[in-house]
Order: sequence, then C-alpha cells, then structure tokens
Amino acid sequence: MPDYPRTVTVVEVGPRDGLQNEAVHLSTAEKIAFVDRLTGAGLPVIEVGAFVSPSRIPQMAETAGVFTGISRRPGTRYTALVPNVTGLNRAREAGVTEIAIFAAASDTFSRRNINQSIDESFVTYKAVCDEALAARMRIRAYLSTCFGCPYEGDVPPLRVTDLARRLLDLGVFEVSVSDTIGVAHPGQVTKVLEILLARVDRARLALHFHDTRGTALANVLTALGIGVSTFDASAGGLGGCPYAPGATGNLATEDLIYMLDGLGIETGVSLERLLDASGYVADRTGRALPSRVAQATRATRKPGVGL
Amino acid sequence: MPDYPRTVTVVEVGPRDGLQNEAVHLSTAEKIAFVDRLTGAGLPVIEVGAFVSPSRIPQMAETAGVFTGISRRPGTRYTALVPNVTGLNRAREAGVTEIAIFAAASDTFSRRNINQSIDESFVTYKAVCDEALAARMRIRAYLSTCFGCPYEGDVPPLRVTDLARRLLDLGVFEVSVSDTIGVAHPGQVTKVLEILLARVDRARLALHFHDTRGTALANVLTALGIGVSTFDASAGGLGGCPYAPGATGNLATEDLIYMLDGLGIETGVSLERLLDASGYVADRTGRALPSRVAQATRATRKPGVGL
Repeated sequence: MPDYPRTVTVVEVGPRDGLQNEAVHLSTAEKIAFVDRLTGAGLPVIEVGAFVSPSRIPQMAETAGVFTGISRRPGTRYTALVPNVTGLNRAREAGVTEIAIFAAASDTFSRRNINQSIDESFVTYKAVCDEALAARMRIRAYLSTCFGCPYEGDVPPLRVTDLARRLLDLGVFEVSVSDTIGVAHPGQVTKVLEILLARVDRARLALHFHDTRGTALANVLTALGIGVSTFDASAGGLGGCPYAPGATGNLATEDLIYMLDGLGIETGVSLERLLDASGYVADRTGRALPSRVAQATRATRKPGVGL
Repeated sequence: MPDYPRTVTVVEVGPRDGLQNEAVHLSTAEKIAFVDRLTGAGLPVIEVGAFVSPSRIPQMAETAGVFTGISRRPGTRYTALVPNVTGLNRAREAGVTEIAIFAAASDTFSRRNINQSIDESFVTYKAVCDEALAARMRIRAYLSTCFGCPYEGDVPPLRVTDLARRLLDLGVFEVSVSDTIGVAHPGQVTKVLEILLARVDRARLALHFHDTRGTALANVLTALGIGVSTFDASAGGLGGCPYAPGATGNLATEDLIYMLDGLGIETGVSLERLLDASGYVADRTGRALPSRVAQATRATRKPGVGL
C-alpha cells in the first residue's frame, strides 16, 4: 500500500456548497440543527454559509442567523464564503473568524460565474484579503475548474499552479483545487499535482472533487498517495445535481469517511453521527441524498433486509 | 504513480449479471442487439447469459437464442453462466465454448443462493468442470461474498484463498473474486489481495466490485497498483439495485473505462460505442442507468448545457 497520510482533515461544505445548489430551502433553525449535528459528528471544519447577495443566492440568506445560533465546539473551525468586501464586513459582524474566497482557473467560467475576469476577481480578492488579514482572520481559497472547464475544456496545470501561487501570495493559508465539473480522473490528478507541487507546498493544498463520473474516491486515493491530506466533501452529497437528476456533484462526506476509515486514516469524524446529520437533511428535502454509503445504510437498516 | 499494468482485460457482465437483476425483461432480439453493440465497442469478454432454470430466473430464458443470433467477432470471448451439468449440456448444444461457475465464500450465502453448502456446490462444480474440460471448454469461476456476507458479516481472507485454490484445482483458468454486497474499500482490498497472492498467481485473478458505497473505482485502482489486470463490469451499471432504488450494484463499464483511459491503460474498448450500447438498453428500460459517466454524458449532450 502507498504511504498514505495518517490523518486527514475533512472540510465539510454541505451547509454552503451543498445547500446553495439544492432546490429545497432550509430555515435558519433547520440549518442550525444541521450544522450542530455536523459539529457533533466531529467534522473539524464546517463551511456554514455565504455572505452573498440574498437576491442572487436566496439559499444563503440565513447565514448571519445561522452563525448566531450554532453551538460552537472548541477546536472546530466555522467558515463562510465571502465574495467581496461587503460580504467580508457582514461576516465580521456575524463573528466569523475564517472566510473563504472563490477564484477560477478559467477566464470564461470566472466571467460567467461572478461577472469578472480572473484578473478583475484578484483585484477584489486583494482588497478582501488585506482587510481580513488586518482583522486577523484566516482565509481559505477555492480555485475552481482546475481539471476542466464547461466552456473552455482543458485547463493547463501551469495556469492552475500560477493562480494557486497568486492566491497564496494574497495571504491565503490553503487553496482548494477544485474539479468543478467532475471530470478529473486519477491519471489527471497525478499530472496536475506533479506540476502544482513543484511550486506549492502540499500542506497548503486541499482537493475538492465531484463524483459526477464516479471517480471522486479514486482521485482522493491518488492524492493521498502523493501526500495531500485535506479534502472537501459535502454531507449526503448535497449539492448534487449540476446537470441531471440523479447525477451527483459533490463528493459525499460519508463515502469519503467510509474509505478513510477502511484505510485506518484518522479524521475524528463519526460515520454514524454523520449519517444522522445527513439523514436529518434528507428528511427535510424529502428525497434520498446521493451519498452511496447513506443510501446503502438506509436500505440495509430496513426491516427484512438481511444485513 | 504506482506501476500499473499497461493493458487491462474488462469482462462485460451486463447481459447476464446485469439484466438478470433488472425488472425489465428484454426480448431475444433486443439482447442480441445489445451484445452485438458490446462486441462493436471492443469488449474482449462478454458474459452473454446463463443456462439456468427459466422458472427460477425467467430473465435468462432466451440465452440459447441469444447465442444463436449474435454476430461473433474473432478474438472476442462469449461466455455463459452454468449452475450444473444440465446447464452445461444446454450450453454445449448452443455452441458455447467458455462457461462460468458461481461459488461462494460464505456457507450461509451459498445455501440461500443456490440451496447448497459450499462443499455440496463443489461436488456439483467438480462434475461440471470434468465434463467441460473433457469437451475442451474453458471455465471461469466467480467466488462471491469475498469481502463480506449479508448474513455472516466478515469473511476471512484465508477462507477466500483456500476456496480460490480449490476452484483453480478444478481446472478453472480464472477466479473472479467478488464483492457481492459492495462493502469493499481500498484498505480491505489491499489486505485480501496480500493474503490471496501468497497462494494464487495474480494472472489467475479477476476482481468483481460493486459500487454500492462509491468505492468501486478506488478498489480497482488499488488492485491495479498490486498488479491485478482483469476486472468485471456491467454496461450502464446494469443490475444496479440490490437494496434500494437509486443505489447501485455492479461497477459500470463506462465508469471503469473512463478511469482506465485516463490512466493510459489499454483495454481495446471504445467508450463512445460502449455508451451507445448502454444507451440502447436505457432506452428499452425507460430509465437512466446508474453509470455516472453515462448520466453525465447524456446530460451534457442536451442542448443548452455548455459542455
């Protein structure tokens, strides 16, 4: 077996990246209950919400209220996505001490997603980072479309490396290299990481995979073998339908924990309590979430199934 | 990157293991059209059907007719599952030259599945293998529940090894070590293979994974790193619902090919023509098949989706 890291940090993005892309709109109280269950499950980092325009993304309108209501566990990090200085100020007012910014490795994707070129977005993020650092906040960055863009197709790994470096130079402590459209496979992960690691310390990297083509856990396994030890995931696979009903987006946290548990890699997460957290949301959405472990567990717990 | 095999043999089990477990019942002509498309896609081995009791498994009643109607490509192997000497004789009459037998590593599973203990089943299979070898037929064997049993739970790898050896001693050329309930994860695959390979040549092993918990491709990747180079898969992920709607069973051939293509491993299979084959069955079943690559491909081919 390759020399895998002994511990992994799982960044739970379900309450933000997940719920933002779901049709169901949870109330403030329901979101608080969800985050508290994730805390109870032992997730070390939880992205609670986003301070974005409620008219543009109504799903995130409750974020300030959620931050006020959650029960914080010492040692757990609670983060929020922030698109600009206005969002940063709202986050500070809500007592947030760690933020995330969202850049892209494809200019077309950046323009379509946030209506700014990559360079324009870096001007925005420079202002956000300067203010956040002055306020002693920690800053995480997503770098989207690192393995392919829905508009431009292939994305050169050298560009990904350059942008990851620029984000780190803004004072970001970690770049989450993201497969926004779920096309990455282990061969590509190996190539992109080889190029990235020539200029970026692996301790500064997280990976954010989607399971759209079933490769997410194989990609994680490949990255583990290269020494990356931070991975994003979404409880239940929330945020799962970028293209089609039934198609999945975010890697489900349960599926990730199931594999990491089997490898003997410590995460501090209780799979059982995590299933309880995603089951809570599944009950509210009224549908089974995409997580395969969650679906298999629910199915085998039904009376009459011999497992 | 680990030292992966340069070529992999994919054993396509969709027409048998897949369709046998689907609610829809394809006609003889439809099954022939499906197998011919799989042949056209370049699959090197296709399990066409089973010579089992039509009253017990009506889905396989057309197998002889399918063998009569398919267009065989030189070099492609067309196999059939055979449970006993009666089935073997029917297979011979249909011109079959390669058969598969189905043993289990769990006594309880064997009794519930084929109404025989493991030892009783080996008496049956000894008779089948003796006759098949005398007729110069090749014999493949499945060994089910190697990573866990729905009734007994854990299955000792030493027992798996012992049974794999006993199957090889019957004259079987390859044992497909199967994760019948889809619980295997890379940590377990490593442990089971370490023990197996002490007594079984890796060239005699195939692996048969289910994607019930999302780990199938990660398991394949692990086994590739240990030098195994034959994997079973089912076009479209047919046979996908052992427990729950939406939950998947067989690893989808498309998902496997997508990953192997990305690793630069040769299979001889055209992903595009394979998608055409599974798309044919999806149209007949009237539902999207579980393969994530198939679902993502169909979704992104729709007009208006920018990919």
